[in-house]
Amino acid sequence: MEYRLSKLQSFFSELEVDAVFVSTPVNIRYLTGHLAEDAWLLITRAKTFYITDFRYIEHVKKVFKARNIDVIQFEESLFKTVVQLAASHKVKVFGFEENHLTCYQFGRLRALAGKGVKFKGLSGAVEALRVVKEAQELDILRQAIRINLKGFSFIKKFICPGVSEEAVLFKLQDFIRREGVAFSFPPIIASGPNAAYPHARVSGRELKSSEPLLLDLGVEVSGYKSDLTRMFFLGKMSRSFEQNLSAIHGAQEAAYKVIRAGVEAKVVDAAARGFLEKKGLAQYFGHSLGHGVGLDTHEMPRISGKSGEILLENMVITVEPGVYFPGRYGVREEEMVLVTKNGCEVLSGYRDH
Amino acid sequence: MEYRLSKLQSFFSELEVDAVFVSTPVNIRYLTGHLAEDAWLLITRAKTFYITDFRYIEHVKKVFKARNIDVIQFEESLFKTVVQLAASHKVKVFGFEENHLTCYQFGRLRALAGKGVKFKGLSGAVEALRVVKEAQELDILRQAIRINLKGFSFIKKFICPGVSEEAVLFKLQDFIRREGVAFSFPPIIASGPNAAYPHARVSGRELKSSEPLLLDLGVEVSGYKSDLTRMFFLGKMSRSFEQNLSAIHGAQEAAYKVIRAGVEAKVVDAAARGFLEKKGLAQYFGHSLGHGVGLDTHEMPRISGKSGEILLENMVITVEPGVYFPGRYGVREEEMVLVTKNGCEVLSGYRDH
Repeated sequence: MEYRLSKLQSFFSELEVDAVFVSTPVNIRYLTGHLAEDAWLLITRAKTFYITDFRYIEHVKKVFKARNIDVIQFEESLFKTVVQLAASHKVKVFGFEENHLTCYQFGRLRALAGKGVKFKGLSGAVEALRVVKEAQELDILRQAIRINLKGFSFIKKFICPGVSEEAVLFKLQDFIRREGVAFSFPPIIASGPNAAYPHARVSGRELKSSEPLLLDLGVEVSGYKSDLTRMFFLGKMSRSFEQNLSAIHGAQEAAYKVIRAGVEAKVVDAAARGFLEKKGLAQYFGHSLGHGVGLDTHEMPRISGKSGEILLENMVITVEPGVYFPGRYGVREEEMVLVTKNGCEVLSGYRDH
Repeated sequence: MEYRLSKLQSFFSELEVDAVFVSTPVNIRYLTGHLAEDAWLLITRAKTFYITDFRYIEHVKKVFKARNIDVIQFEESLFKTVVQLAASHKVKVFGFEENHLTCYQFGRLRALAGKGVKFKGLSGAVEALRVVKEAQELDILRQAIRINLKGFSFIKKFICPGVSEEAVLFKLQDFIRREGVAFSFPPIIASGPNAAYPHARVSGRELKSSEPLLLDLGVEVSGYKSDLTRMFFLGKMSRSFEQNLSAIHGAQEAAYKVIRAGVEAKVVDAAARGFLEKKGLAQYFGHSLGHGVGLDTHEMPRISGKSGEILLENMVITVEPGVYFPGRYGVREEEMVLVTKNGCEVLSGYRDH
């Protein structure tokens, strides 16, 4: 994993820093391959320090035994230790993750460092490395997607009128446990009118005949998250539901047509939104089209009308158009898509249920 | 719940602010009684605004229908809406939660507000209200503790040599589900040498005869968390384990003797630590004695040698001395204790298993 650290270090000149203090757990995991708990990284131009307390130190020392990472135990104060390390390595410009460090923490750090050190808030320095997935990361994501799709097939057999949303959740928990994985996030299980809320909570409501069920499910494998949504319908689909679902699929197809390396993310959002516009549905599509997915369920890039990001080869993004009719129901489907040089690959093979 | 908001507002002069921007979800839950997702509070001297986006707005409007809380939907940017609201209510000194707002968020807020507004970072303004539990909060905590203790009794019947830590976890998941509650945190299930790590992760390791098992379990009821630890021993207790467990119980008793309203938290830590010192065990007790518990598993006050806090009537704290012998095993037991005027009540009735 040290190549990821080296890659970050190679950006130090561009970032105009002598060191980066990494406090975001998932970024620490990415850079070291180790799931951090109460741990921090200080990365100078030459060295990487993994800083933790006595509770984890024995275990972490074993983990990093043959690695080019120095394990440091802090006693009294993390920030004192960090500032001392930085000083002894002549750090003049100290980069920190401004999206993670709180105002209070930053205040402490700055006060301890004294006047000689300049601080520079970094937004997404490590996250920018994470957007393009390596072959081994794609393997894990494909594995998570495979289990996720299996979960949809499994639950399809279980759902019927009279079963509550909560019972569906419990059944999914059984599935997740049997597969030896975890949820990426608490699943959204929204039946009938509940599906009109994009982020509905699981309730005791019982599924009814002639109603849709929205299931937004994610599976975590080795820290990597899948994130997929499927619609189910109990009984014969109503005509309006069928039309809306078909429009959602059309919007996804429209997005797939424009996705490829080099394209602006907002162009993808516009393609899907334009399709729904033509169907007279754009006003019911109130959120952005998608997001990157990897160690975080939501990560860079944003696929929205406001996004300034450009798609790169081997990014993995979601495509999840949705239309919501308060009081009635909602329709969203969500796929995970690999950006390729000349197009894209829908990793979650849509409409397979 | 509006009395909690009024109480916070009554501190505005002392805090030297005209308004408080609350971003910490659990604080929003405490002040409004509503579990917030992507929501924020702006509290001026006269009014409270609950700010959220289109996804939650329909639901939240229903929730706050008969309440003295204005629900505001932000469109483009949360911070723009917050700054506009503050300006239209003539807020000159704007308090924010410096332990929660990130550097980036604060930078945005300050830039949007312009020069006329002064910002003041607040540490624990809402948390300070939360430390003293109301009767209804104590009822819920007692309920969580009751289920937590039931969980220990339940699992005691299940554990035996050959059962893995993971199997214990799955059994606990079943229990939690059947009780209709949630875990406060992922339980710590540490057998044999794993128990030497205060925050061990659940592994596939199988329990063995003549070994201890440490179980740190928490149950969440209506947002309130219990947090209790028990030691189990498979087979006849070894003499050294028995002695260490007895020392831990002695340290707890020593703490109970000094706990009462008006006492400094560090005095309580010192009482337990002093007891272990006399037993020659203080060097194996590497963490602080305890912490407040409520809507957060760990909240104010800290019960440590460095704590400057004073115990107040109706605080609920944990008392959890532990001794750890790397490579061998560890012993920790944890109780939840209510601070009373003249002493304390051990809510979790120790040694009942």
